[in-house]
Amino acid sequence: MWNFNAGPAVLPLPALEHAQRELLDFEGTGMSILEHSHRGKAYEAVHAECKALLKEVLAIPEGYTTLFLQGGASQQFAQVPMNLVPVGKSADYVITGTWAEKAYAEAQIVGKARVACTTKANDTYVRVPESSEIKVDPDAAYVHITSNNTIYGTQYHSFPEPGSVPLVADMSSDILWRPTDVSRFGLIYAGAQKNMGPAGITIVIIRNDLLERSRTDGIPKIFRYKTIAGEDSLYNTIPVFAVYFVRNVLRWVKHEGGLTAMESRNREKGKLLYDTVDALSGFYQAPVDKGSRSYMNAVFRLPSEDLEKKFLSAAEKGNMVGLKGHRSVGGVRASMYNALPVAAVKALTDLMREFASKNG
Amino acid sequence: MWNFNAGPAVLPLPALEHAQRELLDFEGTGMSILEHSHRGKAYEAVHAECKALLKEVLAIPEGYTTLFLQGGASQQFAQVPMNLVPVGKSADYVITGTWAEKAYAEAQIVGKARVACTTKANDTYVRVPESSEIKVDPDAAYVHITSNNTIYGTQYHSFPEPGSVPLVADMSSDILWRPTDVSRFGLIYAGAQKNMGPAGITIVIIRNDLLERSRTDGIPKIFRYKTIAGEDSLYNTIPVFAVYFVRNVLRWVKHEGGLTAMESRNREKGKLLYDTVDALSGFYQAPVDKGSRSYMNAVFRLPSEDLEKKFLSAAEKGNMVGLKGHRSVGGVRASMYNALPVAAVKALTDLMREFASKNG
Repeated sequence: MWNFNAGPAVLPLPALEHAQRELLDFEGTGMSILEHSHRGKAYEAVHAECKALLKEVLAIPEGYTTLFLQGGASQQFAQVPMNLVPVGKSADYVITGTWAEKAYAEAQIVGKARVACTTKANDTYVRVPESSEIKVDPDAAYVHITSNNTIYGTQYHSFPEPGSVPLVADMSSDILWRPTDVSRFGLIYAGAQKNMGPAGITIVIIRNDLLERSRTDGIPKIFRYKTIAGEDSLYNTIPVFAVYFVRNVLRWVKHEGGLTAMESRNREKGKLLYDTVDALSGFYQAPVDKGSRSYMNAVFRLPSEDLEKKFLSAAEKGNMVGLKGHRSVGGVRASMYNALPVAAVKALTDLMREFASKNG
Repeated sequence: MWNFNAGPAVLPLPALEHAQRELLDFEGTGMSILEHSHRGKAYEAVHAECKALLKEVLAIPEGYTTLFLQGGASQQFAQVPMNLVPVGKSADYVITGTWAEKAYAEAQIVGKARVACTTKANDTYVRVPESSEIKVDPDAAYVHITSNNTIYGTQYHSFPEPGSVPLVADMSSDILWRPTDVSRFGLIYAGAQKNMGPAGITIVIIRNDLLERSRTDGIPKIFRYKTIAGEDSLYNTIPVFAVYFVRNVLRWVKHEGGLTAMESRNREKGKLLYDTVDALSGFYQAPVDKGSRSYMNAVFRLPSEDLEKKFLSAAEKGNMVGLKGHRSVGGVRASMYNALPVAAVKALTDLMREFASKNG
């Protein structure tokens, strides 16, 4: 089965097999990892390894703190401004799709927020902006971007440089897709359920100066980054299994050659897919500007909705699932996260050629 | 291995075996449940079954809505007052231990809160209050209790009756331990990691009139009960595996005979443990008032800290783990959740007798 789900999504088989093998007896302890205390030695080692692997694989520099949280990116839409927008200050948002809109909406409820740029046109989004289009308020608490847009299939290939204003990125859907210069960001957050693991755990990587001046006044203790950082993400019960599984995925990433290897495989898959769309551009249409195309979520349309239905049904017959576009935009979406093998995209592009020749 | 962990804790073996068996291939779909979309048909069925089983097992009456959330009870400490305390109103708290203190502290940050009763004495807690001790503000938004106190080992055996003021209960550590009249509560919340499943999922059961008048103004959308209720807990990505596992646990509870069966087994375990403590009261001391003793977490002391260390080490040699008291109070704590077999408590009480005769 080829799993093109947008998230929760395909996971590395070795990570799953490892979890299955020891699900009843974690490392000879006679208990499942699901039954281990988050304050016990067995979990402590998993916790430390997961953090260390993330630091190594993503090359997180000194001066940053990694937090494990719950609630996904949707909770960070609120928690980032709660922590980082002081009274009287405002935050800047770059709007490139639905998730950016949602992040901006939460920030407006929490405090003051401002649109520094939007690429919305004709009621849709087909690109991310050039750095020069983003009009940053030099006094903004931060500038927020969404590094990859799962619904519209766009992705930043170079990041804005907002000078002294910290850059905050929702990287939920493309973290770990390639080497990333973390030092350019004030804060990175990501739900795990695309490239990192199962749903239920969120990673926040925050520069220590931002952490130190993050807010505490009037904010429930559980929502303060300082609370979580002060207890090494063990202020309250952590989703033990989710962290354990992220560790398994990070072991796999490292074993496969790290983010350089991830990038080369992801570029191979993306090229295969987009080359096929472009070669059959009389039949398939990719709405996204070439420079903004996402290597994680490729979206394309067929000449009619009827043909799209037929295509999706042919794909399912060929053991390819999760290809239906997001319910808000329709069409076809191929999500090609780290754990999706090149063979899956080969199978898909084979079908695309065959389907176009039969129906074109 | 006998697992006396306070949570995350022992899980029913059939629930674990079921998860292990199909971890690579959920019900013939060719994918792990961890890889399934939270918006796909496979997960939808799990979601619906989990909700239906909870309703059946706990006999949740009509007029209540069940929500699946993240962040554990610690997040509900903030989210309950955010949603249920209108501007100008206040909430009442009954303080019976550390978790109640924490809930009260968050409520004071969010809005106005008041202590309706505390059982703190000599810097500790050894009982829950009689209903008559609780001085309810008739205008309070709700009265909050902690049904079971994992640290001090106390538990309500009959619940307060605050008249027209809604009763809100943190049932994280004893939900499902016996049949409970849900209709007496305005809201029940519980992290799953004791009687219900793994860490990473929280259940909120809210009476519909409270849900309808819950707040939305000034509260981030993600933290509003109305948002989550309006999307059947699928507003954002749900921790798919955690819900799946809770379903497995609920299937087991039902198969074993439901909450009546749970209660009779829990009473048997509790009686065994406390009878042993009482019979050897020259050696073991149970600090908790008899009428407030918890059937989930039994705490007791030995004549000295040295003997406690020796006892815990003897227990580990006998394959009994998780018996160390909470770091804030010390001593011994035997957590005896639903999934802990009677045989585990038999092994523990055998050791207690043997240890007392050797060291008493």
